[in-house]
Amino acid sequence: MTQPHPAPASASWPRRADTGAAALTEEDLDRIHRWWRAANYLSVGQIYLLDNPLLRQPLRREHVKPRLLGHWGTTPGLTFLYAHLNRVVRERAQQAVYVTGPGHGGPGLVASTYLEGTYSRVYPEVSQDEAGLKRLFKQFSFPGGIPSHVAPETPGSIHEGGELGYALSHAYGAVFDDPALLAFTVVGDGEAETGPLATSWHSNKFLNPVTDGVVLPVLHLNGYKIANPTVLARIDDDELDALMRGYGHTPHVFTAGFDDEPPQSYHRRFAELLDTVLDEIADIRAAAAEQGAEQAGRPRWPMIVFRTPKGWTGPKSIDGHQTEGSWRSHQVPLSSARDTDEHLQDLQDWLTSYRPEELFDEQGRPAADVAALAPPPELAMGALPQANGGLRRVDLRLPDYREHGVEVPVPGAGVVEPTRVLGSWLREVVRANPGRFRVFGPDETASNRLQDVYDVTDKQWVAGYAGGDLDAHLGRAGQVMEMLSEHQCQGWLEGYLLTGRHGLMSSYEAFIHIVDSMVNQHAKWLKVTNALEWRRPISSLNYLLSSHVWRQDHNGFSHQDPGFIDHVVNKKADIIRVYLPPDANTLLSTFDHVLRSKQYINVVVAGKQPNPSWLTMEEAVRHCTRGLGIWDWAGTEQPGSEPDVVLACAGDIPTVEVLAAADLLRQHLPELRVRVVNVVDLMRLQPEGEHPHGLSDRDFDTIFTATRPVVFAYHGYPWLIHRLAYRRTGHANLHVRGFKEEGTTTTPFDMVMLNDLDRFHLVMDVIDRVPGLSSRYAGLRQQMQDLRLEARLHAREHGEDLPLVRDWVWPQAADAGAAPAGMANSATGGDND
Amino acid sequence: MTQPHPAPASASWPRRADTGAAALTEEDLDRIHRWWRAANYLSVGQIYLLDNPLLRQPLRREHVKPRLLGHWGTTPGLTFLYAHLNRVVRERAQQAVYVTGPGHGGPGLVASTYLEGTYSRVYPEVSQDEAGLKRLFKQFSFPGGIPSHVAPETPGSIHEGGELGYALSHAYGAVFDDPALLAFTVVGDGEAETGPLATSWHSNKFLNPVTDGVVLPVLHLNGYKIANPTVLARIDDDELDALMRGYGHTPHVFTAGFDDEPPQSYHRRFAELLDTVLDEIADIRAAAAEQGAEQAGRPRWPMIVFRTPKGWTGPKSIDGHQTEGSWRSHQVPLSSARDTDEHLQDLQDWLTSYRPEELFDEQGRPAADVAALAPPPELAMGALPQANGGLRRVDLRLPDYREHGVEVPVPGAGVVEPTRVLGSWLREVVRANPGRFRVFGPDETASNRLQDVYDVTDKQWVAGYAGGDLDAHLGRAGQVMEMLSEHQCQGWLEGYLLTGRHGLMSSYEAFIHIVDSMVNQHAKWLKVTNALEWRRPISSLNYLLSSHVWRQDHNGFSHQDPGFIDHVVNKKADIIRVYLPPDANTLLSTFDHVLRSKQYINVVVAGKQPNPSWLTMEEAVRHCTRGLGIWDWAGTEQPGSEPDVVLACAGDIPTVEVLAAADLLRQHLPELRVRVVNVVDLMRLQPEGEHPHGLSDRDFDTIFTATRPVVFAYHGYPWLIHRLAYRRTGHANLHVRGFKEEGTTTTPFDMVMLNDLDRFHLVMDVIDRVPGLSSRYAGLRQQMQDLRLEARLHAREHGEDLPLVRDWVWPQAADAGAAPAGMANSATGGDND
Repeated sequence: MTQPHPAPASASWPRRADTGAAALTEEDLDRIHRWWRAANYLSVGQIYLLDNPLLRQPLRREHVKPRLLGHWGTTPGLTFLYAHLNRVVRERAQQAVYVTGPGHGGPGLVASTYLEGTYSRVYPEVSQDEAGLKRLFKQFSFPGGIPSHVAPETPGSIHEGGELGYALSHAYGAVFDDPALLAFTVVGDGEAETGPLATSWHSNKFLNPVTDGVVLPVLHLNGYKIANPTVLARIDDDELDALMRGYGHTPHVFTAGFDDEPPQSYHRRFAELLDTVLDEIADIRAAAAEQGAEQAGRPRWPMIVFRTPKGWTGPKSIDGHQTEGSWRSHQVPLSSARDTDEHLQDLQDWLTSYRPEELFDEQGRPAADVAALAPPPELAMGALPQANGGLRRVDLRLPDYREHGVEVPVPGAGVVEPTRVLGSWLREVVRANPGRFRVFGPDETASNRLQDVYDVTDKQWVAGYAGGDLDAHLGRAGQVMEMLSEHQCQGWLEGYLLTGRHGLMSSYEAFIHIVDSMVNQHAKWLKVTNALEWRRPISSLNYLLSSHVWRQDHNGFSHQDPGFIDHVVNKKADIIRVYLPPDANTLLSTFDHVLRSKQYINVVVAGKQPNPSWLTMEEAVRHCTRGLGIWDWAGTEQPGSEPDVVLACAGDIPTVEVLAAADLLRQHLPELRVRVVNVVDLMRLQPEGEHPHGLSDRDFDTIFTATRPVVFAYHGYPWLIHRLAYRRTGHANLHVRGFKEEGTTTTPFDMVMLNDLDRFHLVMDVIDRVPGLSSRYAGLRQQMQDLRLEARLHAREHGEDLPLVRDWVWPQAADAGAAPAGMANSATGGDND
Repeated sequence: MTQPHPAPASASWPRRADTGAAALTEEDLDRIHRWWRAANYLSVGQIYLLDNPLLRQPLRREHVKPRLLGHWGTTPGLTFLYAHLNRVVRERAQQAVYVTGPGHGGPGLVASTYLEGTYSRVYPEVSQDEAGLKRLFKQFSFPGGIPSHVAPETPGSIHEGGELGYALSHAYGAVFDDPALLAFTVVGDGEAETGPLATSWHSNKFLNPVTDGVVLPVLHLNGYKIANPTVLARIDDDELDALMRGYGHTPHVFTAGFDDEPPQSYHRRFAELLDTVLDEIADIRAAAAEQGAEQAGRPRWPMIVFRTPKGWTGPKSIDGHQTEGSWRSHQVPLSSARDTDEHLQDLQDWLTSYRPEELFDEQGRPAADVAALAPPPELAMGALPQANGGLRRVDLRLPDYREHGVEVPVPGAGVVEPTRVLGSWLREVVRANPGRFRVFGPDETASNRLQDVYDVTDKQWVAGYAGGDLDAHLGRAGQVMEMLSEHQCQGWLEGYLLTGRHGLMSSYEAFIHIVDSMVNQHAKWLKVTNALEWRRPISSLNYLLSSHVWRQDHNGFSHQDPGFIDHVVNKKADIIRVYLPPDANTLLSTFDHVLRSKQYINVVVAGKQPNPSWLTMEEAVRHCTRGLGIWDWAGTEQPGSEPDVVLACAGDIPTVEVLAAADLLRQHLPELRVRVVNVVDLMRLQPEGEHPHGLSDRDFDTIFTATRPVVFAYHGYPWLIHRLAYRRTGHANLHVRGFKEEGTTTTPFDMVMLNDLDRFHLVMDVIDRVPGLSSRYAGLRQQMQDLRLEARLHAREHGEDLPLVRDWVWPQAADAGAAPAGMANSATGGDND
């Protein structure tokens, strides 16, 4: 690394003794307990009550919701922690986000942010009075209301609580490059069983103790899932201790709720533990600051094991079955409260056990002393700007990508590895944006040819060093993040984006399916926040899929599947964008665009192998702006009349094959009027009514014609093109070649042939589809078939492609003396995993 | 559990002292070393050589492959372990499978199984002579040859080595119910960073030490990935030790290759370690057998940390860069061996360093004493029947599902939870098939209403017990496997199936995307093995997705996405099947079918909420056999003439809505001739040329007509129906309603309305599409729109659906006095997570 990491923003991590806070009094603890009771009351109210929010009348059946939905079990633990955090955030003026791993504990977070006042500031109609309470209760998990999980609608959340497993990844992503931020992260013991969570503990090997913030994990052992105990609650204490130490943490165990210990006592114990742990963090920070970002070692960060009963403070037993402290507390313990008098009474008893009359005043406002536990609004965890990243987001400084463009004197010249060219520009992006742009990938940044970024930054690595060459490009502070876990990279990037920064993730096309479900969850976050005025737009989630399915050099058949595009396209049209730049200059232009964008999921597929350049930088900019276009220079149209056939392509390999087919057609069918169309922005194919990028029918017909055969060579599964272009006038004339799940081969052209996407087959397609050709050109068709056979046999004999194919160069480029490259031997260049 | 687990098959786990094996001699160790050298030589040969396999001529450029593809780095570790295992397998007559986590070390496994003789038995043309060696080398990662990874083509493998993360899950799946089997499982330190692998260590909490076999994990710390060090190789020894103990293992550390220790010495150390570890396992087994399957506690199973240099025995350095012991060994260290004399010489030196002339005889056969290290053929790891599960597979005994059918006196009667009915039959399947049928799910078996299985078996749980009620349905040996990790459940099930057994996985529809990429890998395994005569067919991978996207009761918007079906349908047609049974009887019939099938991925989507039954058992069998059909009783056709409109449906909720729409049309448009079609087997919609289940065009047109409007209500994303039916005559008349990513609601009908799939909207669709209706029935259309609005407002006011909707019953059923249920309030029944 040639450029040091920027000095961290001033970040104060005081010890409690240095804050001037007074010793904890019984009143302090009582206030915490009262807050907790209030939050639990509000949580139970949300799950059950349609009316009578302050229980000022005896509970009647019609006060209870007809459908009881939600999750009680995890909630009291979450509210307990929130209550205590209020105090330390206030005392230490600590910027803290609260990441809720057990996201189904939605009522607890809504209740807590309501008590602190944030909720009513964001949603004024949910006011701090009896009418507001009624709204608060009714809306929960109710048609037209809010989800039962922690969600984008929940102030203070950067974490959608549906699918479990990503709490720690999100938390670490949030604190990267934010040295003042504490991510207080509750990990549920159910969630802890998932794979992504199990590996995300190791994030601490990637956290700089000076330039990044701090994650404080709390493993919430309430012991049960839906209908089972949890693994981590049922291993021996010494094993759990070893596991946490093995993960690199110093565990602190807190247990409460299983005996008759009075609340004052367990609140005191937890408050003191929290102070101990935060002081430990303060000491670590101070020591690391002393050593400096480039020298500080990896601390054994503290974490808390928080063992409390599931459904703590809820009904001890229902119908003779233990409920508190059991999986029976998971959802709605008194599910027939509206149906039986006995359960209605149980619910009334449960609610009144919190003594709401002591917690809310006449108007229904939280009692003043309880409300005063909350930090000032600017520090309230529900209102911290980091939890509404768009508030903090500043556009990237983007250096001029045109300066990195490839010289293209004639089409087909300028053979380069496109992603390597992109890397040269990304180096400048990294340089220009210290502390707010990171590159994430599962050990593939260099493999994907982005290694130029290492001229200006390192891979952040806070585990052990072996010295010298073996640690190439590793540094304790850097803007590249690599761990062999797509889940982890995705989760970190999401956390980084959600807190207002920028980034991209590079991955193999085939393996990006690993995060399919995470993409779903992020897409839903974007969809929902698009409709929430108070949530400001965040940077797009950008994928670069550069080791794609057509070049499986080192990996045989195992690394195939272009279906991520299909997966993404199923999401809402206003969120997703898919780009298939055919060469280096279009890739640059595309990436400049996606790094400027907000609230999208951008998928860019572009190969890393040597590839001809087709467009000059200026042409590339125009082409990308249009999203698709006719390549006049490649076709043989006559001005003023429609072509006989359209050869369309999307993707780098399909583009090479279509151009080679166009070349063959020029040679063998010179009178045929061929139009060549290239598509960069796949969404242009959709009708304008279905996608914001969609072409009008008139424009579409102008480009693809309404009547002529269109032979379309596509990077992915062919059906997607049909789907996108389905409503177009000439759709019946559209013939798509794409990926067919064929091939166990290692030679590029052989792979293309196995899937019938090759130049020879495309020529055959043209002969078959243009009226009148098939009888007149039977010989040519046979010749094409023979060439395919020859190419197949050559590959099987020699292990490389037919020279005729391998050495093919677009005629203009050949005339200009350009070297072949389209399907070059990648023996020295192919390093897919 | 009312029925004890069957007594285990006799499983002998002797201590070495009891086997009669003599003490290890220097000759034994020399033989192991010679085997290792031979395996390494064969591995390097596969990566580099096209010819001159025994180096009987000086190496020339043309002997080197033109494209050098493969992975050397992990290989020597894999061959080292295989060599040593041969000895212990032979001495102890141990059934052992070798699970290769670092699957890109394909050449090492091919080399090892070639040396042991299995490879030539399976592929006679790859003979044990010079000609066979040449074939062995050439075929590797070569067009028309074999993949570079451990793959279905590799004898002895149950583990495709493309995507990393599943080695331990597969290994545990393999040993469940196979008490004599040892799964020797190499976990790469790269793979160890993935989420799925990180949680899979906890599999040991689910392994019975009497009735299951044993997994011996070897964490192969060679220190590097593609271009980075690995996390676990760069944490302190005490942390790694703690981590493994935290995972419940007793670690044994072995380090070699970093100094000048002579081979005899490190081979002796490892051989002794292996004996120690296997004796430890023998002691554990003996103690557990003493206690019995129902009483034995959880042992702290041994595992081995195997720390050796990446690319061990390869070039120490190339072009001045350290290569052995560095990430530079990952793939092909001498990538320009064909291009430069210096590297060609380096390659020659490397190959001759193994002294092939001492390892192969004149004919090119492995030297007799080396070959004799291999176990006898029936125990050779490449040939163990467990690694070719189809050899061991025995059809399930399937009790008559008809006996579990619901009485359906008239359509729409017999309101039941379909999966609960299925559960009653699965209970009998479990009962009839001890030890070879397991039910897997991420804590959802009871939530998905399959709890009847607990009458005859338990959830296998070998972690701690709390006592009584809190441990309901837990047992140390049982046929239900639950851990909150879809990855883990899927991996276990794959391992179980691949070794010849049967099972199913139940999961939420939305979360099954978590395993998208694993499905890819398994689908590829099936595709490839379909073409390998020697691989016998295994049982299908069966999914039951019962908490589906239309019933998000407890979960608001977070649990949606029916795209798993789309993902699966992208795979090869001869592998995938998708079923959407509309009621309990069709679900029973479908499951009977899928549990009999082989080599498929079967996706069955069926709700768990109360649902009317439409077909008697006999009708259901006929309907499922056809896969789709006209429901005469629901339509208003006149014999002898085409209907005016076809209402089609696939999925339980769409079926209810279509029938309710048909009912509305009867009332309001009695003269309209309506046909109702239900589709169970989605693949029937495809042309017969594209899928084995595809209907002929004639049959399709007979059912759907070629000319009439078809309004199709579909469970998932509507585009899939267009895609499947795209080539059908009447496709232009097809109008599909399905899932549109809309809805943040909790009321069933409201959800359906948000996606325009509701009965009122379907009636509007019919009015819009049947010629002549729109002008005459504008009033009815308006009425439908008004009802939608009313339903929306009612839900938002009352939190439940309009009584008109909620209480709707199909008229015949209403006449017979049947209760409503189609969209019943599930307050007491809905327990999605």
